[in-house]
Amino acid sequence: MTDLSFAQRLADTLGTDAVSTSADEIEPWLSDWRGMYKGKAQAVVRPSTTDEVAACLALCSDARVPVVPRGGNTGLCGAATPDASPNNVILSLDRMHAIRSIDTTGNTMVAEAGCILGNLRRAAEEQHRLLPLSLAAEDSCQLGGNLSTNAGGVNVVRYGMTRELALGLEAVLPNGEIFHGLRTLRKDNTGYDLKQLMIGAEGTLGIITAAALRLYPRNDVRVVVLAAVNSAQQALELFELLFERGGPRMQAFEFFTAECLDLVLAHVEGMRAPFAERHPAYVLIELADTVDETALRALVETVIGEALERELCTDAAVSESIAQVNSMWRLREEISEAQRADGPHVKHDVSLPIEAIPAFLETAGERVEKHHAGVRLIVFGHFGDGNLHYNLSRPSGAPRDFFAQHGEGLTAEVLDEVARYGGSISAEHGIGQLKRDYFSRYKDPLEIRLMREIRKVFDPHGIMNPGKIF
Amino acid sequence: MTDLSFAQRLADTLGTDAVSTSADEIEPWLSDWRGMYKGKAQAVVRPSTTDEVAACLALCSDARVPVVPRGGNTGLCGAATPDASPNNVILSLDRMHAIRSIDTTGNTMVAEAGCILGNLRRAAEEQHRLLPLSLAAEDSCQLGGNLSTNAGGVNVVRYGMTRELALGLEAVLPNGEIFHGLRTLRKDNTGYDLKQLMIGAEGTLGIITAAALRLYPRNDVRVVVLAAVNSAQQALELFELLFERGGPRMQAFEFFTAECLDLVLAHVEGMRAPFAERHPAYVLIELADTVDETALRALVETVIGEALERELCTDAAVSESIAQVNSMWRLREEISEAQRADGPHVKHDVSLPIEAIPAFLETAGERVEKHHAGVRLIVFGHFGDGNLHYNLSRPSGAPRDFFAQHGEGLTAEVLDEVARYGGSISAEHGIGQLKRDYFSRYKDPLEIRLMREIRKVFDPHGIMNPGKIF
Repeated sequence: MTDLSFAQRLADTLGTDAVSTSADEIEPWLSDWRGMYKGKAQAVVRPSTTDEVAACLALCSDARVPVVPRGGNTGLCGAATPDASPNNVILSLDRMHAIRSIDTTGNTMVAEAGCILGNLRRAAEEQHRLLPLSLAAEDSCQLGGNLSTNAGGVNVVRYGMTRELALGLEAVLPNGEIFHGLRTLRKDNTGYDLKQLMIGAEGTLGIITAAALRLYPRNDVRVVVLAAVNSAQQALELFELLFERGGPRMQAFEFFTAECLDLVLAHVEGMRAPFAERHPAYVLIELADTVDETALRALVETVIGEALERELCTDAAVSESIAQVNSMWRLREEISEAQRADGPHVKHDVSLPIEAIPAFLETAGERVEKHHAGVRLIVFGHFGDGNLHYNLSRPSGAPRDFFAQHGEGLTAEVLDEVARYGGSISAEHGIGQLKRDYFSRYKDPLEIRLMREIRKVFDPHGIMNPGKIF
Repeated sequence: MTDLSFAQRLADTLGTDAVSTSADEIEPWLSDWRGMYKGKAQAVVRPSTTDEVAACLALCSDARVPVVPRGGNTGLCGAATPDASPNNVILSLDRMHAIRSIDTTGNTMVAEAGCILGNLRRAAEEQHRLLPLSLAAEDSCQLGGNLSTNAGGVNVVRYGMTRELALGLEAVLPNGEIFHGLRTLRKDNTGYDLKQLMIGAEGTLGIITAAALRLYPRNDVRVVVLAAVNSAQQALELFELLFERGGPRMQAFEFFTAECLDLVLAHVEGMRAPFAERHPAYVLIELADTVDETALRALVETVIGEALERELCTDAAVSESIAQVNSMWRLREEISEAQRADGPHVKHDVSLPIEAIPAFLETAGERVEKHHAGVRLIVFGHFGDGNLHYNLSRPSGAPRDFFAQHGEGLTAEVLDEVARYGGSISAEHGIGQLKRDYFSRYKDPLEIRLMREIRKVFDPHGIMNPGKIF
């Protein structure tokens, strides 16, 4: 059987409308948005129903054709970009974007994998509910990708990762069988919880076609604090105080250094420094509640007053309006864009035991400086989850291709230091192609062996997203 | 090799102190606490370290000797009771009860599997932290059993099941290899999350030896509401109101019928009816917070006032002291004991989509009555999680062995009705031996096949807890 006849069979089964095979049509699907990876494919398939996904996978399985699932193409590790095999079929669920149900009594939403996250958030909000998953790419990324990478974002400290929000999944196994696990139950102890394997599997175990998600009460009352701190140690002590007093209201605890703020002020229009002085680092804390702004504001003021008195921060500003909430958040959210504008850089999405962050920052910084003096550390992230985006920008005056020569060596230094503290080389971005080598270096061989065997159980012919994770 | 020489080898490896082989010593380990199951064993092994657990499993694996893990023996499905093979080795981790660390900055606790849950809760409390897992058996059950059954309890509506509290696991695989997954990270997206398989596996994939658990801020401010309702539908509407307004403070939403309260008042000494009138059903709601009792009380009073006005309940009492909190809780907590005192009965631990509870109660009740008139429904449970303990007591005047003849038929009616509403035949108790047949009847064959193959990956010789789950 030639490739042409296989593409023809796909078109015969799914309809020509759902299958693209011309080079022009395929081209935009072959690379990731950052342009780091580029691969090949014989076809792009865009089914409209779960049954069509099943039919597609059954055909691919029979013909041993590799399948590369692609969501909103917002990933940072190349997991949704095909490898060099011209035989690949790229599978997009962008036509499966129905919200099948929203239940405000059971507090669940059942949505198809091709839904854009931001649309789901807005749909929940209209029903006076909160879908707490929130991240920078939310108006492009798709639910299927969020689940397949177990996406994190800014509210994990309160609501957990995507995993914690998924009550049930519908998925198609590589052989085309449909996994009917779209349960909305809070409790279901009947054997192994198989959906947990598919969440975070980066499309290696099958195709998630829909999910049942937990909804929360909407928090209409929000207060943001921007605090200046002298050090990560001080931020840690501030975190402890907020955790104890703020309790369940604390829904973000973000951190960024002076160097991050410098980049934002330099590269993003209309931004203003939040304090008269430049401080070594900043913490952005959001507290939110269902009711009673006065009580929340009183709580925040008491706690921040105590923090200033106990010298757990050196200065602090409390938002007084939603406009201020948004402008404070922009200081944090624009860092990635500002770093991009500054030029080529290297990202490390790592996590650490929270209490180890200060020591890690010290020793990792020393290793980076020793490896190559002058490399600029752009460190920010979801401090309350132990998650740092430990990014590097080239030394001032260094050529734009600085990281072509030094990037890999620097990454090895950083990740080695992460491992030394018992951290993770991928907190929320996944492994994809980018961290495959580091995955095999740092993951326990016992775990890798179990993963390989589990992958074989789901995908005996190895057609699902080959070359990804391991 | 005879059995004797195998027991001898165990003793040689682990020390005679850790291995019991005499019939007298083994006897108490052969049955579950309710006396529903009884099996056989050649030895009881009580290792003191993870390495000793590993040595024991390596020996058992080599000799193909079945291993039955046993925690605090508080299970309700016979998962920790051996089958009829005289070859079984019972493995208890009761000597592994160290708390390895408590971290009040990272908010984690690392504890060994033999720890009694209540001790862990108290240890956290002393450090001003909350370990939210709370259930009736907490002063007997062990952490390893809690994890292996993914235990639920009264605070799931706020904090989730045991699964949600486990950040990392240390475990020994059936072949004696140690799984070093004792991470305390909040985020770690590096391949499949293998610990999720072991949680809830009822000891079929290996032995959990220790876990890293999440801790929360202690809630020193607590208010309990006992509300009288006319129906489950009314309870549901009350739940929706509390969910929207109470937000994250709502940490229990329990339900019980008038028949449950009758039993408690009849069989438990010193209990008093909470209202002058008898109402069809009752709801117990707990709200708790880190700070500010005045604000919490004001919130509760406003919300309950609205509930009464909107006729979402017919009467309500709000606790005014910790003594009242405790006495209100006793009305709910003593139901199991009161039903036991009333005589033989059948338990069903089921869950439903929350919004389906009223319809389920109606149609399931009709089926039970039709199957055998006069059977008394004793229905209570964790309503906010959709989890009902849908228990049956024999008709007044029926012989004590009524359920020997009618139990199975009645259970089939109940579970069939649960399945019809998309519910689960085991919400929080697990499958064990008790629900093995129902598991194979109601679980999708696709899921059972995947579970079988995964079990084989972990346990190729089938030595772990044979005959349990499937």
